[in-house]
Parts: sequence; structure tokens; C-alpha cells
Amino acid sequence: MIRIGIAGYGYWGPNLARAVAESGAARVEMIADMSDAALKRASLRHPAAALTTDIMEMIRSPQIDAVMIATPVNTHYPLALAALQAGKHVVVEKPMAETVANASRLVDEAQRRGLTLMVDHTFVYTGAIQAISKLIHSRELGDIYYYDSTRVNLGLFQRDVNVIWDLAVHDFAIMDHLFESKPAAISASAAGFLSNSPENMAHLTVHYECGAMAHLNVNWLAPVKIRQTLIGGSKKMVIYDDMQASEKVKIYDRGAVKGQDDYAHLVSYRLGDMHAPALSTKEALVSETEEFVRCIDTGDTPITDGVGGLRVVEMLAAASRSTELRGHPVDLVSLKVAS
Amino acid sequence: MIRIGIAGYGYWGPNLARAVAESGAARVEMIADMSDAALKRASLRHPAAALTTDIMEMIRSPQIDAVMIATPVNTHYPLALAALQAGKHVVVEKPMAETVANASRLVDEAQRRGLTLMVDHTFVYTGAIQAISKLIHSRELGDIYYYDSTRVNLGLFQRDVNVIWDLAVHDFAIMDHLFESKPAAISASAAGFLSNSPENMAHLTVHYECGAMAHLNVNWLAPVKIRQTLIGGSKKMVIYDDMQASEKVKIYDRGAVKGQDDYAHLVSYRLGDMHAPALSTKEALVSETEEFVRCIDTGDTPITDGVGGLRVVEMLAAASRSTELRGHPVDLVSLKVAS
Amino acid sequence: MIRIGIAGYGYWGPNLARAVAESGAARVEMIADMSDAALKRASLRHPAAALTTDIMEMIRSPQIDAVMIATPVNTHYPLALAALQAGKHVVVEKPMAETVANASRLVDEAQRRGLTLMVDHTFVYTGAIQAISKLIHSRELGDIYYYDSTRVNLGLFQRDVNVIWDLAVHDFAIMDHLFESKPAAISASAAGFLSNSPENMAHLTVHYECGAMAHLNVNWLAPVKIRQTLIGGSKKMVIYDDMQASEKVKIYDRGAVKGQDDYAHLVSYRLGDMHAPALSTKEALVSETEEFVRCIDTGDTPITDGVGGLRVVEMLAAASRSTELRGHPVDLVSLKVAS
Amino acid sequence: MIRIGIAGYGYWGPNLARAVAESGAARVEMIADMSDAALKRASLRHPAAALTTDIMEMIRSPQIDAVMIATPVNTHYPLALAALQAGKHVVVEKPMAETVANASRLVDEAQRRGLTLMVDHTFVYTGAIQAISKLIHSRELGDIYYYDSTRVNLGLFQRDVNVIWDLAVHDFAIMDHLFESKPAAISASAAGFLSNSPENMAHLTVHYECGAMAHLNVNWLAPVKIRQTLIGGSKKMVIYDDMQASEKVKIYDRGAVKGQDDYAHLVSYRLGDMHAPALSTKEALVSETEEFVRCIDTGDTPITDGVGGLRVVEMLAAASRSTELRGHPVDLVSLKVAS
Repeated sequence: MIRIGIAGYGYWGPNLARAVAESGAARVEMIADMSDAALKRASLRHPAAALTTDIMEMIRSPQIDAVMIATPVNTHYPLALAALQAGKHVVVEKPMAETVANASRLVDEAQRRGLTLMVDHTFVYTGAIQAISKLIHSRELGDIYYYDSTRVNLGLFQRDVNVIWDLAVHDFAIMDHLFESKPAAISASAAGFLSNSPENMAHLTVHYECGAMAHLNVNWLAPVKIRQTLIGGSKKMVIYDDMQASEKVKIYDRGAVKGQDDYAHLVSYRLGDMHAPALSTKEALVSETEEFVRCIDTGDTPITDGVGGLRVVEMLAAASRSTELRGHPVDLVSLKVAS
Repeated sequence: MIRIGIAGYGYWGPNLARAVAESGAARVEMIADMSDAALKRASLRHPAAALTTDIMEMIRSPQIDAVMIATPVNTHYPLALAALQAGKHVVVEKPMAETVANASRLVDEAQRRGLTLMVDHTFVYTGAIQAISKLIHSRELGDIYYYDSTRVNLGLFQRDVNVIWDLAVHDFAIMDHLFESKPAAISASAAGFLSNSPENMAHLTVHYECGAMAHLNVNWLAPVKIRQTLIGGSKKMVIYDDMQASEKVKIYDRGAVKGQDDYAHLVSYRLGDMHAPALSTKEALVSETEEFVRCIDTGDTPITDGVGGLRVVEMLAAASRSTELRGHPVDLVSLKVAS
Repeated sequence: MIRIGIAGYGYWGPNLARAVAESGAARVEMIADMSDAALKRASLRHPAAALTTDIMEMIRSPQIDAVMIATPVNTHYPLALAALQAGKHVVVEKPMAETVANASRLVDEAQRRGLTLMVDHTFVYTGAIQAISKLIHSRELGDIYYYDSTRVNLGLFQRDVNVIWDLAVHDFAIMDHLFESKPAAISASAAGFLSNSPENMAHLTVHYECGAMAHLNVNWLAPVKIRQTLIGGSKKMVIYDDMQASEKVKIYDRGAVKGQDDYAHLVSYRLGDMHAPALSTKEALVSETEEFVRCIDTGDTPITDGVGGLRVVEMLAAASRSTELRGHPVDLVSLKVAS
Repeated sequence: MIRIGIAGYGYWGPNLARAVAESGAARVEMIADMSDAALKRASLRHPAAALTTDIMEMIRSPQIDAVMIATPVNTHYPLALAALQAGKHVVVEKPMAETVANASRLVDEAQRRGLTLMVDHTFVYTGAIQAISKLIHSRELGDIYYYDSTRVNLGLFQRDVNVIWDLAVHDFAIMDHLFESKPAAISASAAGFLSNSPENMAHLTVHYECGAMAHLNVNWLAPVKIRQTLIGGSKKMVIYDDMQASEKVKIYDRGAVKGQDDYAHLVSYRLGDMHAPALSTKEALVSETEEFVRCIDTGDTPITDGVGGLRVVEMLAAASRSTELRGHPVDLVSLKVAS
């Protein structure tokens, strides 16, 4: 049984550890966190796991086969690199790294050593995204026109990353999974309304090579939590509302729009049918853990592998660059500013 | 009693005529439309009104005191100008004109002749916007950080205007009413997915002089109708959801966000209270008609006067220019491209 | 063209008159109301109609072919009877009469004279109920297990009828249209919390001969308006939520419920698909008016004819009797108390 | 630290064990379940706990101070009795026992021995019910007119209890906590649509001595999960919707209902304000565990003590008796049929 070390037992680490325990496919062998309080919490839930305040010690330990990294963003790269260099398979929390160069270096290291490198883009493993993925790749939606996401809530402001790196990263990972076309350029505007805090609100537009357009609205300072994505296709359209307890994914026929006379303007409500498919209710993090273990065993490439994680970091970097240019579009291929 | 002539009895004209009849403050004296079918419908609902297929004849008729213009957009300017020149008070459908120059010309003409010129920005007269206006102008929300609107539906594509001129115009009028600060620059991206049709989807960002940011998401090709606006202030935040049958406006305290340890990331749900004020249920179009009649009688400036309508056209023109520049921000003062 | 007389131009009469005008299938020839203010309102909307404060005069007038009665409940019977005796076709507002005997007398009078007698059970003509009717009569839902309706709101208390006669009447008419089986007995509890007012809250249970059970929750003193009906069948289930702007009718597969171990209790969310069919958006009252005119022309029996209206009154009477018996079930056939 | 034994590790036992671990106020010392598979799951989550397939052995063990019983309903009484007789404090899953006599016997046994006896009526400990409780007991709602609950979902059918004992039990416990008045009589109708299964649908009406009326709609065979309660008071009204992610409790002013003319019927939407208070987000089961430990330490009476649990069983028994009498109301005091 694969022996897992959990690096970081703060906000997300406990979820990773629990998913490992519940999957039954691997074992939480060791947990590392600099905080004694965190380790005390860990011991209550995982009494059989070894504990340490020295993350590097755990990474190098021969007792573990793989590391899951859930530490602050600026430590993702050094810890993941050290783990790969120690011969461990790695799952790293999103975003994979703070720069394209570092993300790329992790991909290289994993490939050179034949190790499994996975990024924890959890949403990709949800029943909702898997259902939408099937709809798109089976061409049931037709050509994809747009992806339009609102991902806002009232949250604590993070200190080390802004709202783009914290929230838009989810959509970039989902889009990387759903779109067959490549993103060509990104335009982004961001604003920070509280002093001494990173930007808390941003609007991003991604232009795809196929002509499709994606738009993301991310905000830490919204009155309520909204997680809603509209996807428009030439044949059908989708609403994915992650805040619904059921019917998270609704598929709409374009519908027969009636002929209208000369003055016709808008038809308020459509006439087509709507369909909400049954979704898998398996917890995404458990599916993700199983995928990690399966790829370690088989050598397969994970659904959210390091290369995909690198593409996501490329998009994040381009978006950041665009915000500095007041929204001027930034090309993705080489991160140069679009002419 | 003010005698009104209705120019255009297609999609919107019947609503104007009905509002006049219901207000009791004015009378539908004449209805003009080039279509016989439209006039037949008009005669069923307004049997006492004179009918004509010659709009100019009605505009010049001494039998009417004021004209309400609900014709295609490209005729707004010539018809409104002719009506003013004939000494009639005018309500013109939104957008007021197709160019800033023409809108400006209408303002001048009305001022010179001392006539009431009003633009039919109906939303401004709703109980919801009036309640939000009070919240903002009483400083209950504190400083305004952002206005974020989603205005999408599945509609018939218009032939003469694109989605910005059709839908974003509503938000521009609302913003003109709510914001005390001036818009400095607009950045907009638009896309048209159907051939031979104007753009059907756009995202617009408006930068205000005070630092506030507005964002509009407008789309004719969405699976469902959404009319939702988030307004963030330094003290409170608002959700305005026009699709709700009740509680269209909800006001949220920022709430006490708990202290968190080093790993703290997001708090999913806020802890503050929410309040939904009772709103006036009076029909906006009737309030608007009463405002028109009141201003004709008193010489007062209407809430949505020609000058405000001109500012809205300036924003529309700037947004259009930005879409041609792939989203490059366009300054508003002189409609020159932002450096 | 059928010439219609509108008896009563208070709350509902204007809607009937408008529906007649919009249908184009008949003409509002005359409007009668005892209130001068009501007639003034009528003249603004229907300037071509003759007006009178004497309803009986209108009923007897040779200028009209049919009467639509929208007066207080206790006048339904005498006015409808007088109209039938004057040889007019009749639409009478719900409930058709205050007693089974009087409702029965109207049915007899209409049959004897070969006149069309229709009850204005408007909901039956909505796109939603017509779609549900098709689902049930095509056996797509399988055997009907239950009909469970919540019909509550904060309203003005009526003086002449209680909440059962005001709100439950809608469900009884819908059930009469949907169920093939006959109601066997009704049990009802009611309460009135305000002094000098009829009962404002009631719960009713209807036992059908086939074993199905219907339950109605009606209340004038609720904090919000709810119009939601669950219909359970052996194959599929339906939610009909009339407060939704779209997707008013949702059809759920029973779904494959997974096998469970010995301790299994509840599965929170179902796994089957959901489907929301496109509904006709035609206004119910216009469809109803067309049905009335069609039946006058052809001699056909209307969908909501007097016999159905009589069955609804029988259910109302049984429910009232049960409330007097503290909820003891009352048999429907002969209105005797169930043993 | 209080040492807890968990009796039954099937559906609910794991939640109790987790709450104990998270509260930090007590320790999961031992877990008993007849199923080896269940114990294997228990060992993954609670590796430090002793395990046994012999529940009676655990109950008698000197290693534990208190027992939490989450076994099938028909074993609640014998196991709770054995635990009390062994000198252990007890939390027993709802319903406390299958008969009033047995529930009463448990209360006596606990009182005689000075042990803490608590029933796991979890909902009472939620932030929502605690907020509503404050509203009622501070008289902010005024006199309580009604409590109207819809508690339906598509679930697996239970074998040992029907839907009344499974779902209505929650409302009875909540009502026992909220109402100051005593329930006088209960009328209930139930139906079972699947063969070899207990009743899956029921409607219950509870008449209180003060004149208030409660109604419960419980159903295992509904298309969706609904958890909605309306509470009407003379001053304010409440909606408690447990399926909402936020704003679970909304408080409505009665609102000023406008004067109306003679024909006035209904006002669709109310005019008063709405307020949604911030609710504690602490997990109810953790609060409940803390209450249990606190009462063991201090000798205080728990919020949901055995006497309250007994009252709930009395209501369940009266409801069951009424279903056998076709809905005839059953008095509560002595469980005799109401005359």
C-alpha cells in the first residue's frame, strides 16, 4: 500500500489526509507541519501517522513513497522539487508554482525521474465537471462559443496570492480539461479595495484560437457565495451551479425561436427543453487520490498532471501581466504582450 | 390633460401607450406606425386614439403636446429632432441616439426651446433602483467599490444594434443614476457567434474616477435569463436580483470575519445579517410617465433627462470603440483612446 | 363575433375583459358594475363597450350573447341562473356557487337550454397543467400515488369566503382535470387567527378510490407566496412550481436507488435524471376565452364545464363539513359523514 | 476526560464518534458493532479506540463513562436501559424508544440513578433552531399561530420504522423546544405506496392548547429534498429553509396591508421588510456533545433530556394511533381517542 506523507496540515491538508484514509488505496504514513497545534489536530484524526515539524525530514524519509503538498504557495516549488529529487511521487496543491519557469522545472524533474507529478485541481474530478466534459467531448453541445464563470464569495483575504491565483486558478484548470482549442490571449482587470491586501476582485477574458471566449468573474468581497458557470454551444447550453444541492448541471436545448415581425426585439424565456443528468456523488478528492495511486502503480499520466498544471500557471502569469497593463491582452504562447 | 402621440406600436410602444392610459395623467391621443397590423392591434386597445401610418404627420399635428418614440434605433434621432422642432415634448426610447453628436444635438435643441426631453431608461424608475439609490446617496453602503451586473438571456438577435447597445445601455443608465463619481475609461470585449448578426455577447469594465470598478456581462445567447447585480461598498453590500418575485434587493452587512491562524484561507459563508427592504410595487413605466407629465407641467428636469441620456450614449460609444481595439481601455472625456 | 357582457369589473373582471379583447374571438360589448369608479376604469380600457350599473339589465340585454360573471361569490348563483334563463351562455368565476344544490341547478338549467356553461378554473388552461395532464394521461408517470400542494401567501382576508373556498378551489379544479379516479372522502382542519375573519389556514386530505392521496396546504397568512405541487407516480415524479419564471414543471425519474447494507437509512439526494419540458407560454385566460367561444360555436363541452364545476363545489362542501367535525373524514358521494 | 462508548457504527454512529473527537471534550474510548466491516471502517477513523462486536460487553465495561446508542430503533430501549443499569450516562438516538412505557421507564431509571439521559434530537442544537427559539421566547414573533413543516426527500425505505417515526420525530423535537403551550391532540393520515414497506408518506396536524396549529408533511418518496418550515406569529413570521447554504432563517414583518376597495381580494406580494440574522455555524452535533459532557460534569438537565424525549414519543404514539383511526384526532394527555 502506497505510504503518503502530508506536507502542511492547515486549511487543506486535513482534507487530503482524510481523502487518503477514505480511499483505502493508500495510507497516511506521516504528517508534517511547523505548527504544534496543527500536529495535535492531526494526531486526533490520524493517530497512527508519524508526526514531525520538519517537512524536509518527512520528504526525505524512506518510510514514505509519495508526498502531498498543502503548504503556502511560495513553498510549493521548493518542496515539490525536493520531494521529486528524493524520488517521491508528488501531488502539489494549486497553483503548482509561482512562476512558469518553476512549474516547468517541476515537470522536467518528474519526467526525467519517471515519477508521477499531479496538481490538486480538485474540481476536475467532480461529477459535475466529468459530466460536462463528456457533453463537450461527445460534441453534444456542438461548437463551444463561450465559458462564463462567476466565482465570488466573502472570504478572508489571503496574504500570499491575489484573487486570480486563488480563485481563477480553478476555472483555468477546468477550462484546460474541457477545451480542445488552445488559449491565445488573456485580458484581465483587477482591483484591491482594502489596504495592504492583494487584489480581491478581477475580471478575466480568455480568447481561444477557435474563436471561443471565456470570461471569469472572481471576487473575495462579494455579499454571497456564487459558483455559477454558463457554457454556450452551437447546439446546446449548460448551466453549472455548484451551490445547488442537486441538479448542479442543467443542459438546455437552444430551442425553436419563433418567427417575429418587423418590430420584434427580445423573447424573454426560451421554449426548448431542459435536462439535468444524474451526477456521480463520489467525493472529488477521493477520486483524485485514487487517480494518483493508480498512476503511481501503472505509470499512466494523471488527468491533472504536471503539464496541465504548467499550462494553468502560464495562464495565471499572463493574466497577472495583463492586469499590470490595464487589461491590454497578453498572448499566451510566449507570454509576450499582444500587438 | 397632456395629449400624447405614440410613435411606433411594435414591441415597446404598446407598453408606453398602456402606461399613459393607466397613469391617468395624460391621454393617448394618436398612435403612428407604418404597419397596418400594428395599427389594428392599437385600435383594439386604444379605440379612442387617432391612427396614422405617417409618423411625421403625427409629430407635426397640433392635436398632440408630446411624443413618445418607440421606433427602431436609427430613427430615434431624426424623429426626436423633428418632434422638438415641432415644439413637442419628447420621450425617446433607449438608446437616445446612435452617436454622441446626435444625442448632443437633441439636448441642445430641447434646451434652446425649453422643452422637456426625457429618455426612457425605465429601470431607473423601479422600486428596486430607487431603494438602492437611497442606500447609496445616504452613504449607508459606505464608499462604493464595485458594481457587477449579469444581464443575459436567450433572445432574438436584433438587427440594428448589438448586445451592448441593447442590454448594457440599461446598466449604464442605472450607473449614471447611482454613481456620484464620473466614469473615466471603458474596456470592452465582444463576440458574435452567429453569422450576419451583430455581436451577441460582451464583457465591459468601467473604471471610475473614484477608483470604483463596474463590470457588465451581457449576452443574448444564454441558456436562461439572469438579471443580477452585486454592489460592493465599504460598509455594506447589495444583491439586486430582478428575476425574484419578492426580495429583489438584499443588503448584507460586511460581517465580523473571525480571526484565523497562519494557514487560514477562505471562510465560505459570512456571518453578518441580511436585510431585504420593502420595495414600491408601482409599475416603473407608470412612474416614468407621471415624471414626464410633471416635468412638462413644472419645467423641472426629469430624473432621466436628455443630458443623462447623452452620458449613456457617450459610454456606449466608448465601449464600442474599445471592442474594436480588442479591449484596450478608451477614455470617456473626449472619446480618445487611453494612453 | 360573439358579444360578451362582463358582470363585475372589480379585481378579476378587468382580466376577463382584457382576455376577450386579446383573444380576438369575441368582443367586449357591455360592462356592468355597481361602482361608478369601476365603470370609469372600464371606460379607459374598453371605450367601445357599453356601461351600466344595473347587472340584471345587461344580463337581459339582446345586445349580448354571453355573460362572464366576476362578482362576489354569493351572487354567482342568482346571476348565472338569470343569465341562463335569459338564454345567454355563461362563464362564472370560481367557485361556481356556494352550495351543491345551487351548482347542480345551474348545470341542469344549462343542459335543458342547450347553453354553454363554463367555470373559470383558469389554472387548468395553463401550459403547466396541460403538460402535466399529458404526462398523467399518457401514463408516463405510472400510477399516481399522491398530489401534494402548498398554496400560501400573505393576502387580504376575504369577507365572503374562507381560505378553502378561495385557494383550495384551484387545486380541486386541477385535481378534477388530472385524476381519473374519483375522490372518496375528504378530511380537513382549518383555523382562523384573526377575529371577525373567516378561516385563513387549512390542511386538507383527499382520499381517492384508487388509493391515491391528495393533500392541500392553503394559507392567507404566510410570510411569502408559495405555489408548489409535488405529484408522485410509480414511474416518475413531478414538481410544479408556479413561482418560477421558467422550468415551472420538472419531471424526475425515480432513479436507481443503490443497494445498502444493514444499517442503511436515507439517501439524501437521488441519482436519476431530471427533465423540464418546454411549456406553452400562451396566457391561460386567453386560451380559456377561446375555448368558451369554440364551445358556443360547436356545442362542444368545455374542458372546465359546469359538471366539473359542480364536482369542485361538492369537494368544497365536503371539506367545509369536515372542518366542522374537527377533521373527521367526510364521504363525497352523498356528503354524508364517513363511518 | 469523559470516555465514550459508541454503540452501533452504521449510518449515524460514525457522525457521533467524529463529533466526540472534534469536540475535544470527551474521548472515543470504545466502538461496538456486530458487523466486522463496520468495525474495520471504525478502526481507520478511530485507530485508538477499542473495538468489539459485543455491544453488551462495551456497555458493562469499566473503561467507559458514557454510551452513545446509534443502533436500530427496536434496540434503543434494552441497550439504553442496560447502560443506565450499568451506571453509564446515555445519549440515545431518536426516537428514544418504541413505546411511551419504555421511554418512561428510561426516564425513571436515569432519575433514580442520577445519571444524564439525553436524546439525540440534533436539529435542536443547530444555529437555525437556536435563533428561532430566541425569537419566540423573546416574544419577537408575538403569539404563535402556526408551525408548518415540509420534510420530504427520496430516501431508502426503512424497515423498522415508518416515515412518522423517522422524519416527523425531528419536528416533534423542534416543536417541543419552541412551543411553550402543550399539544392537546394529533390527527394524522399516512399512506404506503410500496408493498412490504412501512408507510412512506404522512400528514400530521397537532392542535395546541393555546389554539396554535402545527402541520407536518413527511414523505420518503418525493422527487427532491425539501426542508422548509413556516412559522406564523401575530407580529412576525419566519421561514426556515434548511436546504439553503446561507440565510436559512428569514424573518418577515407582517407588513402594512393597504386598504382596499369593495372588490379587493388578494395582494400577491407583501410590503414589509425581511431580515435574515447571522446564524452560528458551529456543527450541531459538536454542540450537542459538549452539552452532554457539560451536563455529566455539572448534573444539569440537558436541553434535549429524557423527559423531552418521552414527550416526543408520546406525540409519535398519538400520531400512529390517529393513522389507524383514519385521521380521527387523538388526545395527548392520556393517549385516549378524542371524543
